[in-house]
Amino acid sequence: MHEPFDMTMAIEAFRNRLASGESQPLDWWHACRERIEAREPEVLAWEALAPSPSVPPAAGLLQGVPVGLKDIIETRNLPTAWGTGGYLSTPGSLVDAALVTLLEQQGVLIMGKTVSTELAYFTPGKTRNPLDPMRTPGGSSSGSAAAVAAGMVPLAFGTQTAGSIIRPASYCGVFGFKPTFDAVSLAGIKSFAPSLDTLGWFANHIEDICTTFSALTRAPAIEALPSLEGVRVGVRSLPSDEALAPEVRQALDEVAGRLERAGAEVVPLPLDGRFDGLVEEQKVVMAYEAARTLASEYRQFADRMGPKLVELLEAGRALPFVRYREARAQAAALQPVLSRAFAEQVDVILAASAQGVAPKGLDATGDPLYCRAWTLLGVPCLNLPLCRGDGGMPLGVQLVGDRFGDERLLAIARTLMQTTP
Amino acid sequence: MHEPFDMTMAIEAFRNRLASGESQPLDWWHACRERIEAREPEVLAWEALAPSPSVPPAAGLLQGVPVGLKDIIETRNLPTAWGTGGYLSTPGSLVDAALVTLLEQQGVLIMGKTVSTELAYFTPGKTRNPLDPMRTPGGSSSGSAAAVAAGMVPLAFGTQTAGSIIRPASYCGVFGFKPTFDAVSLAGIKSFAPSLDTLGWFANHIEDICTTFSALTRAPAIEALPSLEGVRVGVRSLPSDEALAPEVRQALDEVAGRLERAGAEVVPLPLDGRFDGLVEEQKVVMAYEAARTLASEYRQFADRMGPKLVELLEAGRALPFVRYREARAQAAALQPVLSRAFAEQVDVILAASAQGVAPKGLDATGDPLYCRAWTLLGVPCLNLPLCRGDGGMPLGVQLVGDRFGDERLLAIARTLMQTTP
Repeated sequence: MHEPFDMTMAIEAFRNRLASGESQPLDWWHACRERIEAREPEVLAWEALAPSPSVPPAAGLLQGVPVGLKDIIETRNLPTAWGTGGYLSTPGSLVDAALVTLLEQQGVLIMGKTVSTELAYFTPGKTRNPLDPMRTPGGSSSGSAAAVAAGMVPLAFGTQTAGSIIRPASYCGVFGFKPTFDAVSLAGIKSFAPSLDTLGWFANHIEDICTTFSALTRAPAIEALPSLEGVRVGVRSLPSDEALAPEVRQALDEVAGRLERAGAEVVPLPLDGRFDGLVEEQKVVMAYEAARTLASEYRQFADRMGPKLVELLEAGRALPFVRYREARAQAAALQPVLSRAFAEQVDVILAASAQGVAPKGLDATGDPLYCRAWTLLGVPCLNLPLCRGDGGMPLGVQLVGDRFGDERLLAIARTLMQTTP
Repeated sequence: MHEPFDMTMAIEAFRNRLASGESQPLDWWHACRERIEAREPEVLAWEALAPSPSVPPAAGLLQGVPVGLKDIIETRNLPTAWGTGGYLSTPGSLVDAALVTLLEQQGVLIMGKTVSTELAYFTPGKTRNPLDPMRTPGGSSSGSAAAVAAGMVPLAFGTQTAGSIIRPASYCGVFGFKPTFDAVSLAGIKSFAPSLDTLGWFANHIEDICTTFSALTRAPAIEALPSLEGVRVGVRSLPSDEALAPEVRQALDEVAGRLERAGAEVVPLPLDGRFDGLVEEQKVVMAYEAARTLASEYRQFADRMGPKLVELLEAGRALPFVRYREARAQAAALQPVLSRAFAEQVDVILAASAQGVAPKGLDATGDPLYCRAWTLLGVPCLNLPLCRGDGGMPLGVQLVGDRFGDERLLAIARTLMQTTP
């Protein structure tokens, strides 16, 4: 009677099983809970686990799907500690983050809160990389990426301000999607740098990334194209002035080849040097905004904060407004240039996700270098977990779309995955 | 010994008095408290008042300045009820809103929380217009505008998503400034429509608006120009397809004349009809985002919410993503067009703030019509309280600057006020 549950099922397959009566709404939740019991002692992805669901999930696109929520996403019925280890914490907020309600209306079952770095910056939490416990899972959405990679939940949510979704997705070998800036509500989620912070999610199937986008935006379902014939892919990492590590170059070549086999035309995309400069501009925006956004947390808790966070907040506080304004202006000037490239030259951009596989050690979460500029530009980014690097560890590359071109980007990725298994 | 305190003093004058020892740091606070006792029974601007300050204010640009905070701005030591009348409330938040710390670091004394409409939308609070208690003060920052107009505090903070600063400033006859979108941190302030919400402030002196901008951004002090010679002012209200009421047209003419007397060149600014269309796009963005941002509040409290708010949230929920994306795209396309107009044709725009003086009655807060498009464009807007209309009530007009051109806009306004008393 209790046959083993297929943990690798896609969300749509589970929905079909629910419709046909083959599965019950809580089946996936219970299977995930068993997996968590088995894997959590090594992975340490969770801050808090929810009790068994007391009401059946709503009928929606995500009915019965167990999800993890990064610990900076506020919940009424579960504690939130914002990755602080407790110096800032609540047993339950007055209202749920908007995301929680939007997800529950689509039928999810909240599995629990996943480990975040301290206030979603660099101080690591306890989580280990599920593929090698001596390596970082990346951050700041450490627990969400690791929980999905360890098969503990099929879907988990995080945020990206520099590279906090794409990097851990690359390190853990899962799909990670950062939609267009502002496409999904951040209400009830601790902000760090409001003009950069973006909500995103991790999954093991591109189809599940797509389903979740439709569930949250109520956009029509994203279907695969017949092929990638006519799709133009521009290859360009930001910054390009860093020499790409050989394994990263190889990963980009592999995926470029795969895109070509699916029918796409792959070309280098010339974006001028001002785009490389956006990496530094992102740092300015992040530091300036974080110093102001977290002014009260700094005043109350500076003596308990990690040194890197204190350093950033103090550096940000010292930045003059005119420098901040310059950085914002530079981003605002380049956004239409990039949109023009999308309108005239390419459909998506293929770029490095990270400088290599997950670094060894648990005292840092790796470098968001190759994500910073895209985040500042506000464009949708998708980590494709298609390659391997040093030690056989996963190595992703990202596809980048135009602002609010999320559906096009996801349709291309879905097509790629279906036509070149 | 206890001579009457000059309630109309500018912040800089008080700072000079502190420096010379003529005033003590708490003098202004006590004078305001007396004024509140006298005026509050009629005006009803306050949700909660702070106890007497227990520590002296920090030495900063705003040392000893008593301020009011809209009741959607979270505070550790004062209750917040978000204008809900209590269905959502806390006696104190875990951390202060970032604004509170940034202000206290500059020396302010928090006087208390001012009345907000329900969740900063249209359901009015108790506040009356200080110039005529049978009229609305406007909203949603009702208490902050009224408290400044009634002389209860020299400075108060609010937010604008459609017209919630400029409109009440016009109705109450005070300066109201909405800086560039994103220029000042909203952390710890309830969001409504995140791509529109902007923090701003009210004061009786243009100098105080400027001082506050410098205090919050740490930008250099904003000085008056020698004159307005060479400054180009473009006259254009949005939308222009509405016939301006005669008193509004007269107010625009009066201020245009005053600008010319100060040396400026005043010309009509031709912005094409797409700009008028932004009024409707703002409504789409606001409804779509609010429905998502307040999804959890709606789920928990819909039966206690005002009917207009429920209507907006339900309409917003029904809006398709593609329509929202279209509205955002239209705004993004016109922002650079407007920036070009600022670069090539005009320094500031002169526009209507409202359709007339504060309407009679307390069951509504007036219409934000003439503010919606500017808010969507993210540009800084300043209400100049220079005219009178029906019944001798105040009637403002607004000066609008380019994105991140706050300092230029404020310098022009300061010059206007100094050269044409």
